[in-house]
Amino acid sequence: MAIITLTTDFGEKDHSSGAVKGAIYSELRDVTVVDISHSVAPFSIPEAAYIIQSAYSSFPKGTIHIIGIDSELNIENKHIAVKLDGHYFICANNGIMSMICAEIAPEQIVEINIHDRIESSFPVLDVFVKVACHIARGGTLDVIGKRIEQIKPITEIKPHVNEEQSQIIGSIIYIDNYGNVISNIKQSFFEAIQKGRPFIISARNHKLKAIHSKYSDIINFDTPESERNDEGRALVVFNSSSYLEIAIYKSNTVTVGGASTLMGLKLRDTVTVNFIE
Amino acid sequence: MAIITLTTDFGEKDHSSGAVKGAIYSELRDVTVVDISHSVAPFSIPEAAYIIQSAYSSFPKGTIHIIGIDSELNIENKHIAVKLDGHYFICANNGIMSMICAEIAPEQIVEINIHDRIESSFPVLDVFVKVACHIARGGTLDVIGKRIEQIKPITEIKPHVNEEQSQIIGSIIYIDNYGNVISNIKQSFFEAIQKGRPFIISARNHKLKAIHSKYSDIINFDTPESERNDEGRALVVFNSSSYLEIAIYKSNTVTVGGASTLMGLKLRDTVTVNFIE
Amino acid sequence: MAIITLTTDFGEKDHSSGAVKGAIYSELRDVTVVDISHSVAPFSIPEAAYIIQSAYSSFPKGTIHIIGIDSELNIENKHIAVKLDGHYFICANNGIMSMICAEIAPEQIVEINIHDRIESSFPVLDVFVKVACHIARGGTLDVIGKRIEQIKPITEIKPHVNEEQSQIIGSIIYIDNYGNVISNIKQSFFEAIQKGRPFIISARNHKLKAIHSKYSDIINFDTPESERNDEGRALVVFNSSSYLEIAIYKSNTVTVGGASTLMGLKLRDTVTVNFIE
Repeated sequence: MAIITLTTDFGEKDHSSGAVKGAIYSELRDVTVVDISHSVAPFSIPEAAYIIQSAYSSFPKGTIHIIGIDSELNIENKHIAVKLDGHYFICANNGIMSMICAEIAPEQIVEINIHDRIESSFPVLDVFVKVACHIARGGTLDVIGKRIEQIKPITEIKPHVNEEQSQIIGSIIYIDNYGNVISNIKQSFFEAIQKGRPFIISARNHKLKAIHSKYSDIINFDTPESERNDEGRALVVFNSSSYLEIAIYKSNTVTVGGASTLMGLKLRDTVTVNFIE
Repeated sequence: MAIITLTTDFGEKDHSSGAVKGAIYSELRDVTVVDISHSVAPFSIPEAAYIIQSAYSSFPKGTIHIIGIDSELNIENKHIAVKLDGHYFICANNGIMSMICAEIAPEQIVEINIHDRIESSFPVLDVFVKVACHIARGGTLDVIGKRIEQIKPITEIKPHVNEEQSQIIGSIIYIDNYGNVISNIKQSFFEAIQKGRPFIISARNHKLKAIHSKYSDIINFDTPESERNDEGRALVVFNSSSYLEIAIYKSNTVTVGGASTLMGLKLRDTVTVNFIE
Repeated sequence: MAIITLTTDFGEKDHSSGAVKGAIYSELRDVTVVDISHSVAPFSIPEAAYIIQSAYSSFPKGTIHIIGIDSELNIENKHIAVKLDGHYFICANNGIMSMICAEIAPEQIVEINIHDRIESSFPVLDVFVKVACHIARGGTLDVIGKRIEQIKPITEIKPHVNEEQSQIIGSIIYIDNYGNVISNIKQSFFEAIQKGRPFIISARNHKLKAIHSKYSDIINFDTPESERNDEGRALVVFNSSSYLEIAIYKSNTVTVGGASTLMGLKLRDTVTVNFIE
């Protein structure tokens, strides 16, 4: 029994995500539909790219991922299906897949060409569902599209390293539910440049000199709990998606605030790592 | 295996939607429960009516739709089950079904009368789930209610046409996740009055003279991408639910704003169409 | 086929809840995963305790409940699995279970000890899913943990009664989607102290002398609908979770406001009941 996941900017209120699930079950009764997120910021390709990259590999091989962000078909925005790492992805060719594809080479990419058969003002419902159910029934990509070699890249998704290899200049690509800010600096990339050197991480006027392996590593458990004052302290971790993240210990964006509000950090702000000789 | 959908104003945080799913699985293990929306504005019957009308027909025939909005039982708010278009709907008789029923005649309506057996302060959980599972097991409506002929209407849901057939006066019934504003003017209704004439659509001080077949139709793809300035432009489409919608191209209510904020349009505002001889 | 529920503070947007579902389906294909809530306020143990207590018993016996709130493993925050009332709960030992356990004695509690096999910065995904799937396959708690007798309590979760038994001092533990405020005073507790006496319920400067059995009981249905003025009136009910709740009839936090905003009530505020001789 196939699994089809949904990652969209439809929001939690509108009928759209419900309608898409209905369309899937109308095509194929014996399938599991899983919501990854419907709260991607409208038209935010970087957010969608981060979310799907962080979620997909927890699913079994063979899972089919529908990504419904900026998917209206036009001459500059074609639809694609990608096989990568044993998973299938169906989306517009607008850069969403470039973050995943930068890490792992796709096995196959096709530009979907079944539109002559389907007139649609809601392509996720009418086209992506058809393609997903075709794959779920064991169909090949060649039947629903023509092979292409390249996908459209997102620019500025990768951090920059200076010539002396003494500095990484990254940027904030995502702010999570706790207000923690996530940079585009991956652990493997960081360590390849670092080569064991000490470092200073800068974001706005904040400087941080350590990367912890978990959030509560900043707590001194020898101090009695009543004397501690750690909630609200800033720290850096590589998060569970392996990206460098600036966090506030036990943050809550509604009450105490998160790293984004307390430290004045926002999407696309620069995060710099300076290595010390 | 039956499908039961949920459309409620319970919100995303409270335990209510989870409890309802638990109650369904306690009655019937072999069923698929699908969330349509739990973020209908509290007690908003027009919003719920629009959402369920837009979503239901994507589901397979035989699907059972629970609508949990303003469902406390009292002398003026009875519970009904409706069979319409091969689908089943369970809700309070408070107008939610009048939008769908204005388009398609119900096959059967019953006023639910199993309440003597169930004392409840949470009728969706205790009553609607019982009725849904009864239908899912193949039971008839006559067993759980007595037939009635009429449902309660919502007033002011239909647009007004003047005597000369030169003007449609509609109103805004829904604002979607992108801030686009959706009127109660259906494409079929519009075209029956229009009879091919040109028109001017007015909302507040905004005038629009064309209806596009998709959002990106306003883009001139011959202009290089860097020279275009179309994000934030207003346009009109018949949306995927076939309602006349005033939209902003690639709107985002958090950043650039949507039609609702940028154009100052809100629920119940008037949308007028004047036809030109 | 097992049911696994999820109650977390991951939010609706991030990839986390999707990743956890993927991890469950990767372990065990034949399982039903049900979202209870992902919108618990970050790190709010009382909110999570109220939500899971209100939802769990609607599910069939044998259901496995994963609670992902403040679950990072450290010397003061161990992981536990609890069997209670025929249900299984997997969470951190941070007080979440103390509200349920105050009502019903656990059948078995174990401190999870499989961490030596799993290095994780995302324990819900890596540890709780493993434990849940172990239980879903029919495994015993003894295989994944060592028995303990006590769980960590949350303080101040129970209301206080004065020596003369003339006063209950409770507090607000949850504000729901309608802005209604829910106290920690359970109906059974209230009635045991009340012994049939009249009472005055006080919250801030508001005094209420009756508890209704449902919201619309405050309406006089003999008055014609157009002459009524009941929307926005305050009332008290025991809600469907049997807690004393101060509500506004047909409240909407966005438009008219709910009890929380209209009456100036917030989390942890005092709710006092004075019994009259």
